[in-house]
Amino acid sequence: MAGGGEKKSKANATGGGKKKEVKKETGLGLSYKKDENFGEWYSEVVVNGEMIEYYDISGCYIIRPWAMSIWETMQKFFDAEIKKMKIQNCYFPLFVSPTVLQKEKDHIEGFAPEVAWVTKSGESDLEVPIAIRPTSETVMYPYYSKWIRGHRDLPLKLNQWCNVVRWEFSNPTPFIRSREFLWQEGHTAFATKSEADDEVLQILELYRRIYEEFLAVPVIKGKKSELEKFAGGLYTTTVEAFIPNTGRGIQGATSHCLGQNFSKMFEIIFENEKGEKAMAWQNSWAYTTRTIGVMVMVHGDDKGLVLPPRVASVQVIVVPVPYKDADTQGIFDACTATVETLCEAGICANMDSRDNYSPGWKYSHWEMKGVPLRIEIGPKDLAKNQVRAVRRDNGAKVDLPRSSLVERIKELLDEIQESLFVAAKQRRDACIQIVKTWDEFVEALGQRKMILAPWCDEEEVEKDVKARTKGEMGAAKTLCSPLEQPEIPEGTLCFASGKPAKRWSYWGRSY
Amino acid sequence: MAGGGEKKSKANATGGGKKKEVKKETGLGLSYKKDENFGEWYSEVVVNGEMIEYYDISGCYIIRPWAMSIWETMQKFFDAEIKKMKIQNCYFPLFVSPTVLQKEKDHIEGFAPEVAWVTKSGESDLEVPIAIRPTSETVMYPYYSKWIRGHRDLPLKLNQWCNVVRWEFSNPTPFIRSREFLWQEGHTAFATKSEADDEVLQILELYRRIYEEFLAVPVIKGKKSELEKFAGGLYTTTVEAFIPNTGRGIQGATSHCLGQNFSKMFEIIFENEKGEKAMAWQNSWAYTTRTIGVMVMVHGDDKGLVLPPRVASVQVIVVPVPYKDADTQGIFDACTATVETLCEAGICANMDSRDNYSPGWKYSHWEMKGVPLRIEIGPKDLAKNQVRAVRRDNGAKVDLPRSSLVERIKELLDEIQESLFVAAKQRRDACIQIVKTWDEFVEALGQRKMILAPWCDEEEVEKDVKARTKGEMGAAKTLCSPLEQPEIPEGTLCFASGKPAKRWSYWGRSY
Repeated sequence: MAGGGEKKSKANATGGGKKKEVKKETGLGLSYKKDENFGEWYSEVVVNGEMIEYYDISGCYIIRPWAMSIWETMQKFFDAEIKKMKIQNCYFPLFVSPTVLQKEKDHIEGFAPEVAWVTKSGESDLEVPIAIRPTSETVMYPYYSKWIRGHRDLPLKLNQWCNVVRWEFSNPTPFIRSREFLWQEGHTAFATKSEADDEVLQILELYRRIYEEFLAVPVIKGKKSELEKFAGGLYTTTVEAFIPNTGRGIQGATSHCLGQNFSKMFEIIFENEKGEKAMAWQNSWAYTTRTIGVMVMVHGDDKGLVLPPRVASVQVIVVPVPYKDADTQGIFDACTATVETLCEAGICANMDSRDNYSPGWKYSHWEMKGVPLRIEIGPKDLAKNQVRAVRRDNGAKVDLPRSSLVERIKELLDEIQESLFVAAKQRRDACIQIVKTWDEFVEALGQRKMILAPWCDEEEVEKDVKARTKGEMGAAKTLCSPLEQPEIPEGTLCFASGKPAKRWSYWGRSY
Repeated sequence: MAGGGEKKSKANATGGGKKKEVKKETGLGLSYKKDENFGEWYSEVVVNGEMIEYYDISGCYIIRPWAMSIWETMQKFFDAEIKKMKIQNCYFPLFVSPTVLQKEKDHIEGFAPEVAWVTKSGESDLEVPIAIRPTSETVMYPYYSKWIRGHRDLPLKLNQWCNVVRWEFSNPTPFIRSREFLWQEGHTAFATKSEADDEVLQILELYRRIYEEFLAVPVIKGKKSELEKFAGGLYTTTVEAFIPNTGRGIQGATSHCLGQNFSKMFEIIFENEKGEKAMAWQNSWAYTTRTIGVMVMVHGDDKGLVLPPRVASVQVIVVPVPYKDADTQGIFDACTATVETLCEAGICANMDSRDNYSPGWKYSHWEMKGVPLRIEIGPKDLAKNQVRAVRRDNGAKVDLPRSSLVERIKELLDEIQESLFVAAKQRRDACIQIVKTWDEFVEALGQRKMILAPWCDEEEVEKDVKARTKGEMGAAKTLCSPLEQPEIPEGTLCFASGKPAKRWSYWGRSY
């Protein structure tokens, strides 16, 4: 740690205690702490980190380039993966006519209160109000019915990247709960249930990879309860994340098997190989810009955002640290050369060469924005032909010889990616509590745990648990039954009903 | 042309005159001819070519994968190019509040009659109706005002890929004029006019490349008249295409310099290097899914779509042509191997191995879909270790040895791309008519020409020309003044007003 004293010296060079003043002047730094006031901290970090700008219509947000590039990285991965699965992109209209929207009863009951209606164009009233899609099952399936005639038309596998609108009234939160959001929605139809079942899990695995491999957020793959499944579907699988600070589960992305329910309503009927009429088996699946919010909540700290290297549009920020009387040009040249070397090796590196900010201000600025790795180059580094690298996730500092820079930076970025995941998993796992009785359940809920409990899997019992836990903080509900089920010893009883337990299920409050 | 007789023989093998019957049975083929009934031909070709499905809300269309992949190809190119220019992607909301929408007077006058309004969510009326963006100047610029403070905040260069809604009542046409469409919209702000001017032309050049290099559609770069420029902007540049069949010009994409008009309205003010307050110079620019429609109109023929190789998601379709008693397995294996070889070389090739369609049916099917190149492999080809390649654009047939297949196919695809452009340019150029007097103008307009005429460049004169040419077919207007101006000899007079001509301008009817 040869350069250990450097930062201090540099602070002196730019005016001793000035760093703090600069911070204050420019509004850098967060007013709220993650552990003390999570909600305010989150709003502040997404704004100060330049991911989000609040908009003049409540529940709508501006997604700024710093967040959009994360969405694009995930999109690039997911789009390539589904294309390998021979799923094709398309685009269906934003608007739905009311008759079509209302065709599937359970489905529309789930969405009706949140549907936005267009009733006017210019000064004229429309003949019939037109709905804005909250999701596209009813938009698409009349045409699936038209396109699917024989077994050779199956499977039909389409996806679209688009915006949807759900005019919710509960607490809007950037990324997490917004009235308009971006997503992909896949809609597929198969001749057999087993093909549909297989795809549900293939997609769920891609969602797991987005969270765990890109966003470094641990998730649990599971199945939703009957009460929590997609309105009108057969069963819903989910990747569930957990926010330790609020003790709330959050649905990360869902992959639904719709069964034959929609194909019955929309007459998606095909002639099978025996010449008989049969109904298609359907899936739908989606992930949204919520993913970004979950990542911010899980990794962010009191200095701002913390971005996993795989989704950071700037992975390395290079800051020149010129002392008075130092070889400023030499330092700037070394910074430029470093950025070039890294970029050539496929690492996203940038230099902050602005002359109106101090190095200390720049450190805070890029920490706020969550850049995984900072490189500082000062006179000593120049002399020793090295750079100082500082990790955003844990603040660790290391001096790296410029001769082996690319290799070492790649290693460091991989390490950061990995340790963000490991640390997040440790924090999440520390919140998981196994309970077997109602009393234990209530205690764990009070401690904001993610509760794993044996359950009879009866809808009435879940409703009952919700009713009994109602309160200021919101009721408890099932998050999911994990696909990997721990063993259930003979005679295990449901924590809530005392009936024989059928499966383990995660319970808790949720977003 | 060794395999010249093969197609016929194959037709015999699959049942003599059966090809025609199959066509009829399955609804292949077009009922309308491009030269006889252009409008009906177009609607039919986009539907039968599986680009578009008509939707149950008028003016909205379903973009099917066959068209969506073309959009994605253009998007990939354009997105990479603007990223090189350091333009960043973002996402602003779909919704605009009425006060903001109405802030720029000329602008809103241009769009107001087409704005769709959301007035209800669920069963409840909204407090204030909310508009759906027809374009995002007024959505974005209040935030530009917030983000731009000093000269170091400039340039600010953002782009978004999104949907917009213009509730038009004139003749809806798939891709060309739809109530919802997809586009990119770039919005940039600069400290100086010259930077803005430069970018306008850089973007215009990218639009030219999309049309000419990808879609093989010739366009003219030009400037819009005062009457035709973007509502609220300073000047509008355009790439103008022309549809010979209807004799109509069509605005291909536009790159606007907004000047300081919006920055005045929205107070986009910065402190310049001298410490003085200054207003930002702004641009906005967009191209839409209309591009796809123009391509269909220009290249399509009576057999269906004709796709330029650079945008075709299937560039080569391989069709096995097994005779009765032929080595069917050998033919199928050769087809499979051919597809593999081509795909490995980065050529998008597919095999049509369906056993319930005849080769003849398949030929028609893939001709309808516009695949640039068809490869047939029959017993003779197998014996000679060759394939038969058939061009979609001109029907030319050539036998290619399998040993040098990749190289020859690449050459052929390049040739097709090039000759589609050359042929389209010849047809377009044949429609250009230079006129100098009003009588010549009227005659040329009657002949559906794209008219190049010396003009005084006065708004009143354009209004007058519009009034004097009003009729069933629509009035004539300026399409653009070409950036490359022919010389104007001293004393040249305006064709319409007789005043001294200031510039050459294209005139005609338009979409």
